[in-house]
Amino acid sequence: KINADRLWDSLMEMAKIGPGVAGGNNRQTLTDEDGEGRSLFQRWCEAAGCEMGLDTMGNMFAMRAGTDPDALPVYVGSHLDTQPTGGKYDGVLGVLGGLEVVRTLNDLNVKTKHPIVVVNWTNEEGTRFAPAMLSSGVFAGVHTEDWAKSRTDAEGKTFGDELNRIGWQGEEPVGARKMHALFELHIEQGPILEAEGKEIGIVTHGQGLSWTQLTVTGKDSHTGSTPMPMRKNAGLGMAKILQLVDEIAWSHAPDAVGAAGHIDVFPNSRNVIPGKVVFTVDFRSPNLAVIQDMEARLAKGAQAICDEMGLGLEIEKTGGFDPVEFDAGCVGALRDAANRLGYSHRDIISGAGHDACWINQVAPAAMVMCPCVDGLSHNEAEEISKDWAAAGTDVLLHAVVETAKI
Amino acid sequence: KINADRLWDSLMEMAKIGPGVAGGNNRQTLTDEDGEGRSLFQRWCEAAGCEMGLDTMGNMFAMRAGTDPDALPVYVGSHLDTQPTGGKYDGVLGVLGGLEVVRTLNDLNVKTKHPIVVVNWTNEEGTRFAPAMLSSGVFAGVHTEDWAKSRTDAEGKTFGDELNRIGWQGEEPVGARKMHALFELHIEQGPILEAEGKEIGIVTHGQGLSWTQLTVTGKDSHTGSTPMPMRKNAGLGMAKILQLVDEIAWSHAPDAVGAAGHIDVFPNSRNVIPGKVVFTVDFRSPNLAVIQDMEARLAKGAQAICDEMGLGLEIEKTGGFDPVEFDAGCVGALRDAANRLGYSHRDIISGAGHDACWINQVAPAAMVMCPCVDGLSHNEAEEISKDWAAAGTDVLLHAVVETAKI
Ligand SMILES: NC(=O)NCCC(=O)O
Ligand SMILES: NC(=O)NCCC(=O)O
Repeated sequence: KINADRLWDSLMEMAKIGPGVAGGNNRQTLTDEDGEGRSLFQRWCEAAGCEMGLDTMGNMFAMRAGTDPDALPVYVGSHLDTQPTGGKYDGVLGVLGGLEVVRTLNDLNVKTKHPIVVVNWTNEEGTRFAPAMLSSGVFAGVHTEDWAKSRTDAEGKTFGDELNRIGWQGEEPVGARKMHALFELHIEQGPILEAEGKEIGIVTHGQGLSWTQLTVTGKDSHTGSTPMPMRKNAGLGMAKILQLVDEIAWSHAPDAVGAAGHIDVFPNSRNVIPGKVVFTVDFRSPNLAVIQDMEARLAKGAQAICDEMGLGLEIEKTGGFDPVEFDAGCVGALRDAANRLGYSHRDIISGAGHDACWINQVAPAAMVMCPCVDGLSHNEAEEISKDWAAAGTDVLLHAVVETAKI
Repeated sequence: KINADRLWDSLMEMAKIGPGVAGGNNRQTLTDEDGEGRSLFQRWCEAAGCEMGLDTMGNMFAMRAGTDPDALPVYVGSHLDTQPTGGKYDGVLGVLGGLEVVRTLNDLNVKTKHPIVVVNWTNEEGTRFAPAMLSSGVFAGVHTEDWAKSRTDAEGKTFGDELNRIGWQGEEPVGARKMHALFELHIEQGPILEAEGKEIGIVTHGQGLSWTQLTVTGKDSHTGSTPMPMRKNAGLGMAKILQLVDEIAWSHAPDAVGAAGHIDVFPNSRNVIPGKVVFTVDFRSPNLAVIQDMEARLAKGAQAICDEMGLGLEIEKTGGFDPVEFDAGCVGALRDAANRLGYSHRDIISGAGHDACWINQVAPAAMVMCPCVDGLSHNEAEEISKDWAAAGTDVLLHAVVETAKI
């Protein structure tokens, strides 16, 4: 078993970097705080005897050597970046849980045949630079590196420039590494495990995601002197589309979810009818046909709303992935580990996207989850217990050792 | 008659300060650009032989002396600040039209019994610091100076600090001046005059305004892993309230208008269900009972929406004024002037709020309007013709001279 206190102390130590405003974290990707978090992780990895690799997307790979020079490494990890008002565990548990696996093997002086690599993927959250899971996506060949590096944040800064600025652009070509397998530990970010009193979720599938950016264009004009029939109120158009999004998602519930998280209104002045609204719709389902249906109904319905109101509409797909089925061998290794350790568990579908979803396209991959309080995530109040963190990391340890072979 | 080319040249010269992104202006109150605009206006006033007064709210008063030392001045003016994406004429025409009146009287070597004061009121627009018409409101005793100076912009800077920073805080106590009368020339900002082919609008009334800030509170959580029934989506609550605002306004149309211009979503991340939305509703009507009805229905309806969705709601009235009836004598002077000059005209109700609406509470006041293209204002594409500007300023000149007496 892993050292629960050491794992927890490391989680708390990392959470000091980029504190939020309400007890959580704001350590967004490629900020100075992200750089600080990376340095701390690197120091810990080197202290644990690992050698750090860094690729041109800033993905970090801390390797613990194996005994067989020809054996491909087993990867384990997640991401250290957070939402602007994020929790202390989303992503971080997966990275530091991976580090704890290495530390435990060091304590026990256990050597594995396959090397073990703890990975920190750059920009998993996708808030600052859309889409999410950007760098694991490049690793898996889903996006080109040039495209990824040209992604801009709200201030117009590019991913490439910011990666350079914080000094974490490496030389290793992205995706050059081959993997024997990859395991990702993550908090559930949903309510199921806690509600059912299960310590462990064995993630068999990940639901698919579709991000659509809608730009509704009206005419900015005076809120007082523009008669009602002459208005082209882009804000009102957005409001009607938001309701449509909700209706569409409910029509497929519990097999789908939908909401708009990001909304920018222009010129955003109290006495100006909004002339433009840009917002992003997030639809998800484990069923590809459902996602496609939701996308099609959104496009059609939003167009009808805008046509009727005399508004312009542009629709752009800004991110997404199809539903994922994780590797049966890796899933089995995790389930076996949970059984062997005597933890209560159930199979689960991941509601969120994860780096393992992309890596699964190029290597055998799977995920294990621990519960989180009230299913709450992407909120500074995100919480887990030390026991939950330890149980998830124990399962990770056993699956990794099983796969990396002693 | 005034010098139409000189007036137009001054308008174009002022428009060079704080250019917008689409041909209009971004010269928001108490920015460096506002300071530059003030300096230019001051230079012009001094060149026209006026003496500049400056009060503690930054209101500027350029006086052309009268022949009777006991006669109270006739005031004429408007505001030089603009919306973030505003036009070149909203407010500016009223100030530079006033200056053109003085310049014309200088050309003709006409002395008036009452002094004439050209005024530039600080922060009419109310975008950067709510509410609108802030400093004429303090002048009229509607707001205290302390309250006005403590108003903050989106970055938390106060009105008082910013006024000091740009160096335009004067020593004269606000509201100390007594007025014989006040005239304000303004573009209509609505479609009526142009549609009816009238050169001049004689403003008999101003419609009332109510600004309500609503804060809807839900729970920020993950867009992917939070099941639909567990969501507390503040963005969806806002969307439903926006539709209610539209329904309420239409139920009183054409006697009322309503919209939300300013909307801020938190944390505004693509994969976070909005936990909080702050937005402002702008309701207007020439009928006080209608405004009160709209406010009451909004409060009740928004509460019902939030209760049903499990959302929190805070409602705060952030600005407003009752419908205004302008001074019959001043209105008559403007109507007589239009008749005498042979300009086509009609009586009109101002759809927008103006500094004259507040000053009307402490001095006889009235307004004259010229058409604007497509009734479009609070838009960089706001446009008027040189002839329209000249006609409005001619009427202003004649009414001012009539009132200030030769
Ligand atoms: N795990 C997680 O929150 N990832 C961000 C990508 C997503 O929105 O699912
Ligand atoms: N004239 C004008 O646009 N004033 C701003 C105050 C208002 O919103 O009516």
